[in-house]
Amino acid sequence: MGPGPSDVPTAVLEALSRQTIGHLDPEFVQLMEAIKSLLQTVFQTQNPLTLPLSAPGSAGMEFCLVNLLEAGDKVIICQNGVFGGRMLEIADRIGARSVAIQDEWGQPVDLNKVAEAVREHPDAKLIAFVHAETSTGARSDAESISKLAHDHGMLVLADTVTSLGGIPVEVDAWQLDAVYAGSQKCLSCVPGLSPVTLSERAIEQINKRRTKVQSWFLDVKLLLGYWGSDSRRSYHHTAPVNSLAALHASLTLLVSEGLPAAFARHMLHHRALAAGLQKLGIEFLVSESDRLPMLNSVLVPDGLNEAAVRRQLLDHYGIEIGAGLGALAGKTWRIGLMGHSARSANVYSLITALESILIQSGCGRQIETGAALTQVQQIYESST
Amino acid sequence: MGPGPSDVPTAVLEALSRQTIGHLDPEFVQLMEAIKSLLQTVFQTQNPLTLPLSAPGSAGMEFCLVNLLEAGDKVIICQNGVFGGRMLEIADRIGARSVAIQDEWGQPVDLNKVAEAVREHPDAKLIAFVHAETSTGARSDAESISKLAHDHGMLVLADTVTSLGGIPVEVDAWQLDAVYAGSQKCLSCVPGLSPVTLSERAIEQINKRRTKVQSWFLDVKLLLGYWGSDSRRSYHHTAPVNSLAALHASLTLLVSEGLPAAFARHMLHHRALAAGLQKLGIEFLVSESDRLPMLNSVLVPDGLNEAAVRRQLLDHYGIEIGAGLGALAGKTWRIGLMGHSARSANVYSLITALESILIQSGCGRQIETGAALTQVQQIYESST
Repeated sequence: MGPGPSDVPTAVLEALSRQTIGHLDPEFVQLMEAIKSLLQTVFQTQNPLTLPLSAPGSAGMEFCLVNLLEAGDKVIICQNGVFGGRMLEIADRIGARSVAIQDEWGQPVDLNKVAEAVREHPDAKLIAFVHAETSTGARSDAESISKLAHDHGMLVLADTVTSLGGIPVEVDAWQLDAVYAGSQKCLSCVPGLSPVTLSERAIEQINKRRTKVQSWFLDVKLLLGYWGSDSRRSYHHTAPVNSLAALHASLTLLVSEGLPAAFARHMLHHRALAAGLQKLGIEFLVSESDRLPMLNSVLVPDGLNEAAVRRQLLDHYGIEIGAGLGALAGKTWRIGLMGHSARSANVYSLITALESILIQSGCGRQIETGAALTQVQQIYESST
Repeated sequence: MGPGPSDVPTAVLEALSRQTIGHLDPEFVQLMEAIKSLLQTVFQTQNPLTLPLSAPGSAGMEFCLVNLLEAGDKVIICQNGVFGGRMLEIADRIGARSVAIQDEWGQPVDLNKVAEAVREHPDAKLIAFVHAETSTGARSDAESISKLAHDHGMLVLADTVTSLGGIPVEVDAWQLDAVYAGSQKCLSCVPGLSPVTLSERAIEQINKRRTKVQSWFLDVKLLLGYWGSDSRRSYHHTAPVNSLAALHASLTLLVSEGLPAAFARHMLHHRALAAGLQKLGIEFLVSESDRLPMLNSVLVPDGLNEAAVRRQLLDHYGIEIGAGLGALAGKTWRIGLMGHSARSANVYSLITALESILIQSGCGRQIETGAALTQVQQIYESST
């Protein structure tokens, strides 16, 4: 129940542990085609350029930025947590000129600031933002940011590492141009892969580059020799065959459940968790309208040693929750309800354990024993 | 029996498929320490900076080059196959000035040319070469290249993707400064990880950089926040927890067998394979003294459709062998005897299957049925 990796279903672990076959084996090439198609479904896109990178989500971020930007290009980057900051850092290493839009950690990206930035910097090529900030638990309005970008002739890049599979990510409807995610959050696959998708507009911009992409490993044109539609599949790198078989299994599970059902499941368990936490006197960092269901960022109650509580949860109850990152280190916990981890047993277990720890610590004198669990149960009962 | 991935032992697949735990879980942090220590043993080094990258060997190559080189730096790159060419391509994307030493594909790096290059280019910072060219099956003299580099005050970078675990790779004794490998060859782990090690000299050079490393994902200083000796383990990216558990298992198997025993095993099965191939009239690309035991590059007999033979081996016998790469496409096959794939059952099966296919094709009229297997058997019998 940390901010990812989430629990991995048995069927996915079984697919992972099948004997390794060659990365150019005809059977594996078929699996690659199936993965691309499943990813299109999950990203809600027709983009032919939709594939998993052989590296974690951080490499997905770098992939999007190094392919879309060249030295000297101007980019507007929205920062409202750790990952927007990381985008600024990567843009700097490309030699791009960044315009940073700053919002408080825990707040969504302010659309007024975006509107102002696109007016002030009409020469920017790209707006980049984080749809679901894993460091804070805030959801930003991807569709509106995208509209502002396109109204000013800019491309738009979205980090959906934490959102994909847990809340709607509508790449085509929202006209997102470059999107990356991670395998280990709401997709409930093992960590190490980054699904990405690029629009036709993004590919046009890449085709107009004056310089080579600075990373050989992440150059989309080279990757396409292996992942593209040419069935000859020229070798680029040795793909992580086992992890990709696991991704295929996890995407198959998600598509079988159906995206709307998966989104509803994440929301239900989030509501149950939130109801229980409220009774324990634990408050959310993010206001209700902007909260992510799969990443619950809550304020550590005064007087508690936050690291000791996390250690106690892990050692005594086998439950992992995450620490705050960056500016929120020591101030928040991050409770994940992602993919296969978004289930009632997890919510009941965590609320029970937290209640017990709070009462034991003396910080919870006002807590009515069992009341939080009653709240959780009521949410579940009212949903059936 | 292709050029990797090799077969993965059951114990490694079992470790791979254990339920995913957090990348900051204390249990996982212990596993990281164990992996670093096992990698030091396998690389035969005391380098504290020895760790697995969360991406395949191609990213390992880029890691070494982007950390050691800055725009304008001069580098000598030895090219005698596909992977030296890839180094040149990456160096170009860094803006480094490359001096290429060209040798024929199938030949080792010519030491006379290296000696000439270091004399002619005393301002070069680095010599890069491929210890075991996976595209050709040729082994180069790492120790001598390293000596030439250090005699002229240059650092030395070695690609040991195919050699590590199969033939000696003595990082400290040979004074190699930056070395990368892959998980999926003689280590017999799943593909997707790249073990790397950097010497103190390499770290000194990195500390003197005037500019930031152009890749955020591959910046060694950022990676050290997670992999370094500070037990706080600040988050950099979400590590591929399952693949790393598998790497731990595969390294444990290799160290239990013992490096000398593993090297002898690779050599034995190579000798058996070579004896059988000779009787079938199939010749090696590489002269005997420079051959890699784990990557047998052989010339496709005249009159055979090389792709059809590979397909027949795969479909009828369940055996994968590799095609030629680059300049050798269509001309060679690459037969892997790597890690867990280096065993007698594989050699017997392939020789039997090839004999049958050659006789069937009509290209093998001069083949004496069963003679190749007798040769294979004699090698095994004389070894016990």
